[in-house]
Amino acid sequence: MKIAIIQQNYHIGNFAFNIQKMEKAIVRAQADGAELVVFAELSVCGYPPLDFLEYASFIEKCTNAVNQLAQLSTSELAVIVGAPSANPKIEGKNLFNSAFFLSHGQVKQVVHKSLLPNYDVFDEYRYFEPASETHIIKWKNERIALTICEDLWDVEEDLLYQFRPMDTLALANPSLMINIAASPFNFKHAEKRKEILKKNATQYQLPILYVNQVGAQTELIFDGGSLVMNKNGEVVTELNYFSEDYRLINSEHINTAKSVKNDWIHQSSDLYVSRIHQALILGIQDYFAKMGFSKAILGLSGGIDSAIVYALAVEALGAENVLGAMLPSAFSSNHSISDSEALASNINGRITQIDIEPVFQTFLKSLQPQFEGKPNDVTEENIQSRSRAVLLMAMANKLGYILLNTSNKSEAAVGYGTLYGDMCGGLSVIGDLYKIQVYQLAQYLNRNGEVIPENIITKAPSAELRPNQKDSDSLPEYDLLDRVLEMYIEEKSSRNQIIAAGFDAQVVDRILRLVNQNEWKRFQTPPILRVSTKAFGLGRRMPIVGRYDI
Amino acid sequence: MKIAIIQQNYHIGNFAFNIQKMEKAIVRAQADGAELVVFAELSVCGYPPLDFLEYASFIEKCTNAVNQLAQLSTSELAVIVGAPSANPKIEGKNLFNSAFFLSHGQVKQVVHKSLLPNYDVFDEYRYFEPASETHIIKWKNERIALTICEDLWDVEEDLLYQFRPMDTLALANPSLMINIAASPFNFKHAEKRKEILKKNATQYQLPILYVNQVGAQTELIFDGGSLVMNKNGEVVTELNYFSEDYRLINSEHINTAKSVKNDWIHQSSDLYVSRIHQALILGIQDYFAKMGFSKAILGLSGGIDSAIVYALAVEALGAENVLGAMLPSAFSSNHSISDSEALASNINGRITQIDIEPVFQTFLKSLQPQFEGKPNDVTEENIQSRSRAVLLMAMANKLGYILLNTSNKSEAAVGYGTLYGDMCGGLSVIGDLYKIQVYQLAQYLNRNGEVIPENIITKAPSAELRPNQKDSDSLPEYDLLDRVLEMYIEEKSSRNQIIAAGFDAQVVDRILRLVNQNEWKRFQTPPILRVSTKAFGLGRRMPIVGRYDI
Repeated sequence: MKIAIIQQNYHIGNFAFNIQKMEKAIVRAQADGAELVVFAELSVCGYPPLDFLEYASFIEKCTNAVNQLAQLSTSELAVIVGAPSANPKIEGKNLFNSAFFLSHGQVKQVVHKSLLPNYDVFDEYRYFEPASETHIIKWKNERIALTICEDLWDVEEDLLYQFRPMDTLALANPSLMINIAASPFNFKHAEKRKEILKKNATQYQLPILYVNQVGAQTELIFDGGSLVMNKNGEVVTELNYFSEDYRLINSEHINTAKSVKNDWIHQSSDLYVSRIHQALILGIQDYFAKMGFSKAILGLSGGIDSAIVYALAVEALGAENVLGAMLPSAFSSNHSISDSEALASNINGRITQIDIEPVFQTFLKSLQPQFEGKPNDVTEENIQSRSRAVLLMAMANKLGYILLNTSNKSEAAVGYGTLYGDMCGGLSVIGDLYKIQVYQLAQYLNRNGEVIPENIITKAPSAELRPNQKDSDSLPEYDLLDRVLEMYIEEKSSRNQIIAAGFDAQVVDRILRLVNQNEWKRFQTPPILRVSTKAFGLGRRMPIVGRYDI
Repeated sequence: MKIAIIQQNYHIGNFAFNIQKMEKAIVRAQADGAELVVFAELSVCGYPPLDFLEYASFIEKCTNAVNQLAQLSTSELAVIVGAPSANPKIEGKNLFNSAFFLSHGQVKQVVHKSLLPNYDVFDEYRYFEPASETHIIKWKNERIALTICEDLWDVEEDLLYQFRPMDTLALANPSLMINIAASPFNFKHAEKRKEILKKNATQYQLPILYVNQVGAQTELIFDGGSLVMNKNGEVVTELNYFSEDYRLINSEHINTAKSVKNDWIHQSSDLYVSRIHQALILGIQDYFAKMGFSKAILGLSGGIDSAIVYALAVEALGAENVLGAMLPSAFSSNHSISDSEALASNINGRITQIDIEPVFQTFLKSLQPQFEGKPNDVTEENIQSRSRAVLLMAMANKLGYILLNTSNKSEAAVGYGTLYGDMCGGLSVIGDLYKIQVYQLAQYLNRNGEVIPENIITKAPSAELRPNQKDSDSLPEYDLLDRVLEMYIEEKSSRNQIIAAGFDAQVVDRILRLVNQNEWKRFQTPPILRVSTKAFGLGRRMPIVGRYDI
């Protein structure tokens, strides 16, 4: 059977956009002689639709979209699409997360997702009832075990669910597994996904056709990488990563096809950084495209974080659509301007300059009666940072830019940033990258010639909010800080476990206290492009008033 | 059997604080001759602990706390406490949400929550596996059907779950239902709760002892109202609302006791506003107490929103701990100052004044080269609002205040506010009150004499960011706006349903578009004290890049 794999970038809730794209793909597949066209999980509405699912009118639009697509199906061409469907029973949640099998111009069969991820960034049990039964789909010469994303994932040692839908489906003697997915990216995800799919292929001795979404939906980035695997767990067809793709395959040839050469299977930090790079570019592009924006502004401090975000934004949106604003104060070093100018020159970027000193001094003067007799402290540093934010937001408002946030994960973790100052922005581009990963990314961006000036990479990081300030005055060195943070945030190690790994108790206590005391700050930060297994935001939910002594 | 009902205010993760409080209660109950002491759901760690639950060290602390409390139990005195417990099976989530039955110095029995709320503000299936079995607890002369919060709630017409644990427990012939809860307040919740408990009492023909938490945990406010109900669904004992309480009852007398007079059973807007008032006071107090803060600052615009928040903060924290900052511009009316002064005088409040004109003018001058030839627009309004925020945050930083946010739900809904300007603050006090409810609350605060000056209540609302500006220039009148918002947000009506209810299609489309286009702004707002059935924040999760055409 000829099957067309459709890997597309959907826009949540934008039915006209999604359906037009899906119809085009069906027409193309039909012209290519496909007998089955497979789209991803919740393809008609995009993933994750979140509380849109609680609106009856949203579900109606999903149903209408499925019915519209069904009309393109024929006696020769079937279509599988993902959409929510109503649970007709009184018991349980009102919806299923479903795969619709369309043929002969109609909805012929609907199967539901059994395993509903409800951890990290996932909230599926908020909306959906798990399937209570499984059904094989018979089409042409295939008996299809059709599952949805998580349905194939409960093959780890610590099982998350009570049963595996494939165990039941396997009893009905299927010839092919199809899994439709909306599986968000992290920089280690591609290997994990293949490992999981391989476990299924080999355990059930069946080929797998896996169809993922691609594209970013605010924080969540879907990396595509749809694939076909033979029953030995070898990848025989692999679609693009980070872009839309289309592939026609013949299901009868899967088990005899040669496995494809695969650049993805060797884990290395070089590979990770190239993936992160592509993910961030897609994340920026889709945020702007889906919000209907085109132009970005950001503050250029002369430091590595803003340099990286500037370079990424220029790559993603075009140099003509990005403005770097240099906003020096009396504490800014000379190289803060010259390094930014060198950066802009490297990539033909647009820059401008506004001196914050007049505004800063006016604030100090206005506050003088209130602050009489009080020594300088972090307040004056915050005023500088917030003055910059007011200027950047004014430029954004007047000239139609969206402000990009340039905070990294290390500083977001320990609260080394000014709320309503440098923590502002519509989107945080590198907020899921530890400082050390920011440096790796800088090296990577320079792989074909200098983009990020060498001096930006080699100089000591500084907020430049008081004379001769260095990050290392306030924070442990980044290699130490980042490792402790990773153990605490990604690996959920306790204080004692981190100390047992060889870190100084006082340093560990200080770092963890900083992480936990700054929950209130992170609560108000912009959405962060997620590239790790545990990003701040959606996937990490901590009580603000909680007392933290883990 | 003599049972002590312990209604307490816990602090999430603050084990020393919680356990000391619980131990004291056990000692008191023992002195009173109690044979059973009952605490609320997840009492040892506070509710909701959120992702703390993913830390093994947090669970260990919970277990240690339970074991410590067990040592106070004897052969004569049993204790029921709520805590997470480990799921020993490989399948399913790693934890249960459990009730521990302690006697003879030991953990004697552990029962688990069967129905895990995972909607609105609840995420319990993120952490917990539902119970797969139920057990009666026998103690003294009672056979106790012990359930946890949601376990009794699946008695509506549209059932959320597949089974009811009480149906199984009823087969074992219990003599008493005990339900331990952490059931968050909304202003209609007290009636709903009694209705649900009554359905259980009458259906199973058993008395109910219901033990709730009290106190605020950032957004979520627990209102207490623990109670005892006879098998006819009549309340025979009722504990305090919005404060800790203790009550000793005799289980043998429940069904023969007289039902108590109850001020709560008649729904009226007067009653609602008095509850909202108490909830907000508790919400402010607990936020400050649990964060370890004592002093609040806020901007006093002369309008009703900031006036209300000021009055509430003074009531909650004491006049000496609250500073109202008047920050006039050239567009501020004379009464903006005089009304705020009258307000402060009514409640002996502290005020101060900083003119924002010098800062505003300096910003304009600094931006002049960038804005050359561009007309004035919302940018200049935002600069004023953000200048105020910088001044307020500077005061907060230097002098140790926490900034209170004064936005209401109507303006948060339609985005009528400046991000990083008047949308700043550590806590949003009235962000879950529509403008009309703000007026009701003002009238209520004046019930025993003027607190909010009459002129603040009667003058037309204005942001005063340009000459002679009125809210009604930009927004529909609040009575219309608020009703449309309520239908869309609380009732989840579609556009067509709202229009069918008699509202003008153009106005409805404009309002819904504003609500949906401002998701990105609300994403960065402070936590909001939740008093309605659907507050912005935790309980309403919408895609930011989604295209909204519901």
